[in-house]
Amino acid sequence: MSVVVQNIERADQAVIDRLAVCGVATVHEAQGRKGLLASYMRPIYSGARLAASTVTISAPPGDNWMLHVAIEQLSDGDILVLAPTSPCEDGYFGDLLATSALARGCKGLIIDAGVRDVADLTEMKFPVWSKAVFAQGTVKETLGSVNVPIVCAGALVNPGDVIIADDDGVCVVVLGEAEAVAAKAEARIAAEDDKRKRLAAGELGLDIYKMRERLAEKGLKYV
Amino acid sequence: MSVVVQNIERADQAVIDRLAVCGVATVHEAQGRKGLLASYMRPIYSGARLAASTVTISAPPGDNWMLHVAIEQLSDGDILVLAPTSPCEDGYFGDLLATSALARGCKGLIIDAGVRDVADLTEMKFPVWSKAVFAQGTVKETLGSVNVPIVCAGALVNPGDVIIADDDGVCVVVLGEAEAVAAKAEARIAAEDDKRKRLAAGELGLDIYKMRERLAEKGLKYV
Amino acid sequence: MSVVVQNIERADQAVIDRLAVCGVATVHEAQGRKGLLASYMRPIYSGARLAASTVTISAPPGDNWMLHVAIEQLSDGDILVLAPTSPCEDGYFGDLLATSALARGCKGLIIDAGVRDVADLTEMKFPVWSKAVFAQGTVKETLGSVNVPIVCAGALVNPGDVIIADDDGVCVVVLGEAEAVAAKAEARIAAEDDKRKRLAAGELGLDIYKMRERLAEKGLKYV
Amino acid sequence: MSVVVQNIERADQAVIDRLAVCGVATVHEAQGRKGLLASYMRPIYSGARLAASTVTISAPPGDNWMLHVAIEQLSDGDILVLAPTSPCEDGYFGDLLATSALARGCKGLIIDAGVRDVADLTEMKFPVWSKAVFAQGTVKETLGSVNVPIVCAGALVNPGDVIIADDDGVCVVVLGEAEAVAAKAEARIAAEDDKRKRLAAGELGLDIYKMRERLAEKGLKYV
Amino acid sequence: MSVVVQNIERADQAVIDRLAVCGVATVHEAQGRKGLLASYMRPIYSGARLAASTVTISAPPGDNWMLHVAIEQLSDGDILVLAPTSPCEDGYFGDLLATSALARGCKGLIIDAGVRDVADLTEMKFPVWSKAVFAQGTVKETLGSVNVPIVCAGALVNPGDVIIADDDGVCVVVLGEAEAVAAKAEARIAAEDDKRKRLAAGELGLDIYKMRERLAEKGLKYV
Amino acid sequence: MSVVVQNIERADQAVIDRLAVCGVATVHEAQGRKGLLASYMRPIYSGARLAASTVTISAPPGDNWMLHVAIEQLSDGDILVLAPTSPCEDGYFGDLLATSALARGCKGLIIDAGVRDVADLTEMKFPVWSKAVFAQGTVKETLGSVNVPIVCAGALVNPGDVIIADDDGVCVVVLGEAEAVAAKAEARIAAEDDKRKRLAAGELGLDIYKMRERLAEKGLKYV
Repeated sequence: MSVVVQNIERADQAVIDRLAVCGVATVHEAQGRKGLLASYMRPIYSGARLAASTVTISAPPGDNWMLHVAIEQLSDGDILVLAPTSPCEDGYFGDLLATSALARGCKGLIIDAGVRDVADLTEMKFPVWSKAVFAQGTVKETLGSVNVPIVCAGALVNPGDVIIADDDGVCVVVLGEAEAVAAKAEARIAAEDDKRKRLAAGELGLDIYKMRERLAEKGLKYV
Repeated sequence: MSVVVQNIERADQAVIDRLAVCGVATVHEAQGRKGLLASYMRPIYSGARLAASTVTISAPPGDNWMLHVAIEQLSDGDILVLAPTSPCEDGYFGDLLATSALARGCKGLIIDAGVRDVADLTEMKFPVWSKAVFAQGTVKETLGSVNVPIVCAGALVNPGDVIIADDDGVCVVVLGEAEAVAAKAEARIAAEDDKRKRLAAGELGLDIYKMRERLAEKGLKYV
Repeated sequence: MSVVVQNIERADQAVIDRLAVCGVATVHEAQGRKGLLASYMRPIYSGARLAASTVTISAPPGDNWMLHVAIEQLSDGDILVLAPTSPCEDGYFGDLLATSALARGCKGLIIDAGVRDVADLTEMKFPVWSKAVFAQGTVKETLGSVNVPIVCAGALVNPGDVIIADDDGVCVVVLGEAEAVAAKAEARIAAEDDKRKRLAAGELGLDIYKMRERLAEKGLKYV
Repeated sequence: MSVVVQNIERADQAVIDRLAVCGVATVHEAQGRKGLLASYMRPIYSGARLAASTVTISAPPGDNWMLHVAIEQLSDGDILVLAPTSPCEDGYFGDLLATSALARGCKGLIIDAGVRDVADLTEMKFPVWSKAVFAQGTVKETLGSVNVPIVCAGALVNPGDVIIADDDGVCVVVLGEAEAVAAKAEARIAAEDDKRKRLAAGELGLDIYKMRERLAEKGLKYV
Repeated sequence: MSVVVQNIERADQAVIDRLAVCGVATVHEAQGRKGLLASYMRPIYSGARLAASTVTISAPPGDNWMLHVAIEQLSDGDILVLAPTSPCEDGYFGDLLATSALARGCKGLIIDAGVRDVADLTEMKFPVWSKAVFAQGTVKETLGSVNVPIVCAGALVNPGDVIIADDDGVCVVVLGEAEAVAAKAEARIAAEDDKRKRLAAGELGLDIYKMRERLAEKGLKYV
Repeated sequence: MSVVVQNIERADQAVIDRLAVCGVATVHEAQGRKGLLASYMRPIYSGARLAASTVTISAPPGDNWMLHVAIEQLSDGDILVLAPTSPCEDGYFGDLLATSALARGCKGLIIDAGVRDVADLTEMKFPVWSKAVFAQGTVKETLGSVNVPIVCAGALVNPGDVIIADDDGVCVVVLGEAEAVAAKAEARIAAEDDKRKRLAAGELGLDIYKMRERLAEKGLKYV
């Protein structure tokens, strides 16, 4: 039951780059408020923002063997996404694995578990979004799988799906929807630019979005 | 049952400014160890410190409509304080609302829920203390209220109460007690200055506060 | 039952300094993956790394009296380690106590509870690893003990044990094992240096650690 | 700052009894979806249901002295409601205090902290809704207050307010609104009885509540 | 984007019944240790055990409108499985909805949110596994979907998948694998019966499973 | 580093039996408010109460191999106490292991992790206090140790220490202190019997414990 799927489809890099510009909050809205990982997934340092094609890992609790297996499957520009098969905060990943992943062109790690050596990772500018920072070591005894569908921090992630991550958290875009979502996200940003200017000038959302009538209908009273 | 209270009393700005200087820990002590919001209320970036008069918001879970309504009620120097009517971590507030709030003179946001666009908010220097950072979007379907009493992160907040917030968290001072609390807080700081010098010189708290006798009475044994 | 043990044994300072260089993740591995405090123990600011001999404190919930007692027991280079007798997030420690502790040569605080005045502590470069940041004040009414064995954040800590702390968390090394652990940790670092170079050059962990055969034996399928 | 308010107003016993019949979910709806304590407040045994007038207690963490003070303030049919001044799970209350409270006519305890001797309390049929079951003992060193406003598990409770508690949790009804809320709650129950019969007969809520048109307007698609 | 899928495939009832006999722990093992919902999903009363075909619901936070829509889609013997689109503990479901669901042949509810009227539901013997018991009411303002894939308490659930639930929690079996899993689960039970007898007679697992040699190889020392 | 200590000292059975009668809350008080495991350790069914000599297990996350090893080390009347080496909620123990443990005279299990087959365990009257109920399976790949000191749910437990467990939770008594603690606990019970009668007769704790004067000294005001 433990498999490594070697050939996966990826989204067009140009589309991935467009999604990176849009950021997590906008992309998640653009695709109908879906795809967010749980709010406990936090970056180990502020300011990173990326989009990348996913190589997924399903790993046993406290066992990081499959990370070594997954690194071989990376293509330049991919991101690793790991979900443990039962909840675990152990530190699956540190500076040695990051060195190896970087050498294979990896752009970062999303892990519904722990990470360690975070001072080194920060210095290396290797971004990680994780459930925990925990120095607890792992073993290499039990198999898992690479590039199978996983549920990571509450979201379904398939290999080849696009991950968007920034200081707001992490969002997954289904491979086949990436281009359409990028277009919608860009349209949102364009529309927001105009609104941002009007709001900055002191105009109210109540007026820009024509909310007053509907508020009155619903029964809001000003006293 | 959904109301917007338009005219609220505020504390004297000079008193608010004095409280800002004192900081959360001192103000909370000065008023008899009360008024703290729960420890899970954390700033989105370090180093912000402020005091401000509150405009309160009671909002349904996952619905940020009342934020638009509340922004119209802001006076220059106010802070928004939002409590959901049931626990929620959705991202009620982002950079567009912050732009609008800033244009109305708003000094920040205290929210017992989630916030998003935190990289933008940090760059704008718009401080937020929140329960979560979460990109999850909200709807505009259900009414709430503005400037009614709320319980936010375990503390009762009335409109016009003064909020003090810094890296230690958030504290609320009842409007009618603001001046007296400011005076007590300032007295604490003055008294602490002297003690800080003596402690820095190596004198022990055991001696400065004359604790040795009482420790012996209670039965402490040195072995 | 409340005691202050005045004369405790400490590890050799040279050994402590060697452990500081190695860091939490390496030391914890070197001693057989033991000694870590829970992952919720987080530094109040990034970048601190230290090792120090411990002065332990057992304190009642919401009562910081024993911190004053413990500060007198500090030798130059020690660290304070506090465990409440029942779970508590109150702010036991702030800038005045830090001033006093610094004057006695204290290198930091590990506390399975809350800390406050974190902006001041950060400016003073007084590192703290804590369960919470919380301005909630404490009283001085009930005795505890100093330099007795405690369980802090899930780990047994004896007075004189060596604490290692950095951005990955906190680890305790038993006094009598400090020298042997330092040697093992240094050996790990030396071994890792070689591997880091090979990994950075693009060699795979699968090959460096000769994992391929064992993976096949366990039944991993490549598809 | 520590006070015991001796004479408090109470709701009419007949109104309290009517609220007891309605139960938590119905009462909370009847008063506009407000007044619920947090969902972590759970009964120590199933099947208890009551309404009672509150005697409130504000107590320091890990200190149950004020419970003794509060018991003297009980009138027949009251319930004790305790909030610690900072979060605490210690076991403030056990079978001796329950014996004393029962002798004064007390109907139960709501405590945003811990309780112990739960096997005895269950046998005595003394109902408790608490945040935790924890044997951890407390001291009697620091004052608190009795019959002052408190925030308990996220809800504001004033002395004399009516508490409704059952297997669904705990709800507070403001003293001055008790009669009106009882009337509304009874009306809800009457209305529900008819609907329950129709639903039991297989009629759909979609039809009883005439939802189909509004669902279509909002854009729901059947595929 | 809000849809109701009306015709879904279901597993053979005979297979579902066989899975019910096996229980959660065995079924989850039989399918390779997968499919479990998070451990926080607990039954409202002890002793219920069932298997059923799922009707899935994706619902906004604090909005139970889609439950009414879903009930119309129930076939006799189905179970409702609801996941909110962002984390929520509100009480989406109570005795009226249970009455309606029962009238349509519904066998229970799995909800990654709150439930209320649990005393009534217990009396009705309507089993629910939920994240919380909470009386908090919901609105009917925003659409969701019925019979779409959802992630519920960390597990992917497709409409028509088989849910197994008992006092150990909840497990999902993919529709297409139900028969094979039932066969494997039954084989496990048969194998366990023999082992249970030998263990009850005092034979050791060390001997039955022939573990001694492998333990020695791995280096276990008896001292 | 993985060892099984085969010969451990145990407390006198008569002393253990005396402790069982006293219960967790009383024993914990009698030994100076120490020894409690964390409040999240809950019984899988109500009403069990026991005291027993401990066989300790240190086990890797998600690996229950050492349970088989530990069962061989049981003497009649012992209890198993398991702590994972990093936090884990997997179901390490179910009805087969319970059958085996019962056959060796085991009185129950304390586990800072998960347990499964709880319906069966309840029927067998095999008591378990655990952190979680979770069907998640485990592997048998990595060694741990038996009868070494462990920290379980925040408390230090040595092999041969006495565990007391009931509906209030779990308490550990150090082997060498068991007899003295039993005597003190019995004295407490005797003293409480008198107080219980007086309290039941309506006398107040304020008078029995002569608290009025000290309350007045501390400054309590009756208004």
